[in-house]
Amino acid sequence: MLTFLTRRERFNAAHRMYRQDLTEEENLKMFGKCANPNYHGHNYDLFVTVKGEVNPERPYIIDLKELKVIINDLVIEKLDHKNLNLDVDFMADKMASTELLCVEIFKLLQGPLEAYEGVFLHSVRLAETENNSAECFG
Amino acid sequence: MLTFLTRRERFNAAHRMYRQDLTEEENLKMFGKCANPNYHGHNYDLFVTVKGEVNPERPYIIDLKELKVIINDLVIEKLDHKNLNLDVDFMADKMASTELLCVEIFKLLQGPLEAYEGVFLHSVRLAETENNSAECFG
Amino acid sequence: MLTFLTRRERFNAAHRMYRQDLTEEENLKMFGKCANPNYHGHNYDLFVTVKGEVNPERPYIIDLKELKVIINDLVIEKLDHKNLNLDVDFMADKMASTELLCVEIFKLLQGPLEAYEGVFLHSVRLAETENNSAECFG
Amino acid sequence: MLTFLTRRERFNAAHRMYRQDLTEEENLKMFGKCANPNYHGHNYDLFVTVKGEVNPERPYIIDLKELKVIINDLVIEKLDHKNLNLDVDFMADKMASTELLCVEIFKLLQGPLEAYEGVFLHSVRLAETENNSAECFG
Amino acid sequence: MLTFLTRRERFNAAHRMYRQDLTEEENLKMFGKCANPNYHGHNYDLFVTVKGEVNPERPYIIDLKELKVIINDLVIEKLDHKNLNLDVDFMADKMASTELLCVEIFKLLQGPLEAYEGVFLHSVRLAETENNSAECFG
Amino acid sequence: MLTFLTRRERFNAAHRMYRQDLTEEENLKMFGKCANPNYHGHNYDLFVTVKGEVNPERPYIIDLKELKVIINDLVIEKLDHKNLNLDVDFMADKMASTELLCVEIFKLLQGPLEAYEGVFLHSVRLAETENNSAECFG
Repeated sequence: MLTFLTRRERFNAAHRMYRQDLTEEENLKMFGKCANPNYHGHNYDLFVTVKGEVNPERPYIIDLKELKVIINDLVIEKLDHKNLNLDVDFMADKMASTELLCVEIFKLLQGPLEAYEGVFLHSVRLAETENNSAECFG
Repeated sequence: MLTFLTRRERFNAAHRMYRQDLTEEENLKMFGKCANPNYHGHNYDLFVTVKGEVNPERPYIIDLKELKVIINDLVIEKLDHKNLNLDVDFMADKMASTELLCVEIFKLLQGPLEAYEGVFLHSVRLAETENNSAECFG
Repeated sequence: MLTFLTRRERFNAAHRMYRQDLTEEENLKMFGKCANPNYHGHNYDLFVTVKGEVNPERPYIIDLKELKVIINDLVIEKLDHKNLNLDVDFMADKMASTELLCVEIFKLLQGPLEAYEGVFLHSVRLAETENNSAECFG
Repeated sequence: MLTFLTRRERFNAAHRMYRQDLTEEENLKMFGKCANPNYHGHNYDLFVTVKGEVNPERPYIIDLKELKVIINDLVIEKLDHKNLNLDVDFMADKMASTELLCVEIFKLLQGPLEAYEGVFLHSVRLAETENNSAECFG
Repeated sequence: MLTFLTRRERFNAAHRMYRQDLTEEENLKMFGKCANPNYHGHNYDLFVTVKGEVNPERPYIIDLKELKVIINDLVIEKLDHKNLNLDVDFMADKMASTELLCVEIFKLLQGPLEAYEGVFLHSVRLAETENNSAECFG
Repeated sequence: MLTFLTRRERFNAAHRMYRQDLTEEENLKMFGKCANPNYHGHNYDLFVTVKGEVNPERPYIIDLKELKVIINDLVIEKLDHKNLNLDVDFMADKMASTELLCVEIFKLLQGPLEAYEGVFLHSVRLAETENNSAECFG
C-alpha cells in the first residue's frame, strides 16, 4: 500500500523581503515592515514527506535515521542560524520568500532521497510562523 | 513550480446543532449536548490555502497582507464573536455544522481570491476543536 | 519532597461580557464585540494543580483516575456545551469573565480535593484562547 | 460539495523495532536505540479522515459521536496502554513501524465506516512524535 | 481573591550573540553558530502576567483591550520585524540574550501597567523557540 | 534582576504502574490499564528551569549549550528509548510514576547545575501526556 512518511526538522534564520531593482523606499512601500534593512527572523518548521510502498516484507519507507541525516546535511546545515539573503548560496539571487525557499529545498532533497529504491519525495512544507506556510509537491 | 500558501486566521463563535423540523426533545436526542438551546461555542482555526506558480520572477503567490485583509473582511468580520445560528446571513437557513460552514467560507473566498492573476483557491480547512476539523477543495 | 501534579481538562462554552446595570449600548461601548447579545464562545482549557509530598512509599499525590472524575463531575459536567451566562448556577449573578470563572472553579474543587489526605489544591488555570488565560492560587 | 472530516484520537503504547530473523546484536546495529529489548513507548496521535457530499439537506458527513465510537471500539481499545509487539493481534507477525501500523488501522476502519451511506474513508495519519508521522490513503 | 491574567503577544526579530570586547573569532568560539555575523532570527512568544484582586464587583483585573494596546505600543512595535542588535534603543549596549530582553520588557511595562488601580505586573516570560524561554518577576 | 531560564528536552520511554507487594490482579484493579504487564509508553517532555541574576555584565544565567549537554548526559541518555521499570538504575526500586521520576531528575541535576557560579536549579517539570504533568521545586 502506498504510504507517506513525514519528518519535521527546524531551523532559525534571518531574512528580509526586498527586490534589488527597487529603492529602499519602494521596497518599504511594497513589503512594509518585512523589508526592514537590518532584517528580522523566524523559527522555521520544515516538513519533508516521502512516499513508497510498505508491506510486511518492507515495513518502512526509508530508514528514519538516514532521512534525518540527509535533511540535516543538505538543508538544515545550510539554513540554520543563517541569513537567508546573505549566507545561502542557492538563495543568492532570489527573494527570500517562504514559497521560493520551499521550492529550493524540494530541489535539494529530491535527488538524494529518490536515490533510495522505491522512495519518492512527495512534498515539502515550510512554516514561517504559526500562521503562514508554503508547500510544494513533486 | 506549482506552490501552495496557507494562511491561518481565527475566530470565536457560539452555535448549537439542531434541525428546525424537529422538536427540542428530538434535537437533544439526535445531537446530545451539542443541541443545548442556550448555545455553546468554540475557538475556530481557519486555514485558507491558495496555489499558483512561483519562480524567481514571481517569488510569491499573493501578497500576504492582501490575503490577510480579504480573509478578515469577507469571513472573520462576519463570524468572530458571533452566533453562527443567529448572526450570520449566509448560515441563516443551514445547520451550523463545521462541514457546511467550511463549504460556505470556501464559496465566499473563491471569487475575490481568484480575481488575482494566477491565484487559485485550493482548499479551506476549519478546525472546531483540537480533535475535529472539516476541509473542502476547489 | 513537595511535588505538584497538573491535570488538563477541556470544555466548550458560550458566553458574553455585559453588566446588568448598563444598557446594551453602554455594554457594547465598554466590551466591544465581546458584548454581542447573541453570545460567542470558546474552547476552554482548564489546568488543575494539586500538591503533596511524594516518596517511595507514597509514589503519587492522588490517583489520577479519581482526580479526573472529580474535575469532570464537579466542573466539566456543569460547563461543557453550556452558556456561562444562562446555564451555570454558580455564575448566575456574576460576569462571565475568565478571572471570575477561574476563581469559582477553584472554590468548587478545593473541598473535595483536600478531603484526600495530604492533598492540597495549589492552583487553577483557565485558558480562554491561545492568547488569554487566568490563574488563581490557594 | 465533496467535504472531508477529520477526527483525532490518541493512545499510549510501548513498542520496539526489531526483525525476528536477526540476532539482538544485528537488530541493535540496524535500529539503534529503537531496538531496546525492554521496549520504549510513545503518545500516538491518530487522525482519521472521512469524506462525503454535504449540502443543506445533508449537513454533515457522519455523526461525530458514532465516528468516535467506531474509532475507539475498533482501534483505540486494542492499542491504548498496550505493547504493539506483544498485545496486538493484527500486528503479531509484523514490525511495529509507524507505517505498517497506519496501514493496519486503515484496513480496520474502512469497512465499518464505509457501511454508512455516502461515507468514504479518505486517509489515516498516525503521528508517533511531534517530528515523525505516517499517512495512507484509500 | 488574588488572580492572575496572562496575555500572549508575538514578534519576529533578528539577532546575534556577541560581545563587543571580543574578536569575531572569539565570539564564534564562545557562542557558536549563534554568533553568525549576518544574524539569524526567531519567532518570539511574549507572555505578560498581571495580578490583582477580583470579585463580583471587580470582575476582571484590567481591560484586556487596554492591556493588548499597552503591550503592543510599548513592546511589540519596537521589536517586531526588527534587528535586536541594531534597531532597538533599549538593547543598544546589551547582549541580545533572551534573559536580558525579558528583563528590559519587564521594565518597559511595569510603570504603565501599574498606573492602573490595583494592577501589578507579576511576570514576563519570553520564549525564543519551543525549547528555550526566560522569565522574570516583579 | 533574578531571572529564570527554561530548557525543554524530550525522551520516549516505556513503563507500567504496579506495586511489587501486590498480585497482578490487585495491580490491575488498582491501576487499571496503566498496569498492563507488557508495558505501555509515552513521549515525555522535560522542562528544566534554572535561575540566577542577570545584568549587562552577566547577560545570561548559564551557557545554553552547556545546559543542554548536562541535561542530555545526566538524564536523557539514561531515559530515552528505555523501560523505566527495567532499564533505569535510579528508578529500580520505585514506582515509575511521573511524580517520582520528576523528583529523581531534580536530584540528578541539582549538583551539577549548581556547580556553576550563581546558578540555582529552580524547578523540574515532566509532562507525560498533553493532559498530565508533574513538577517539583528546589
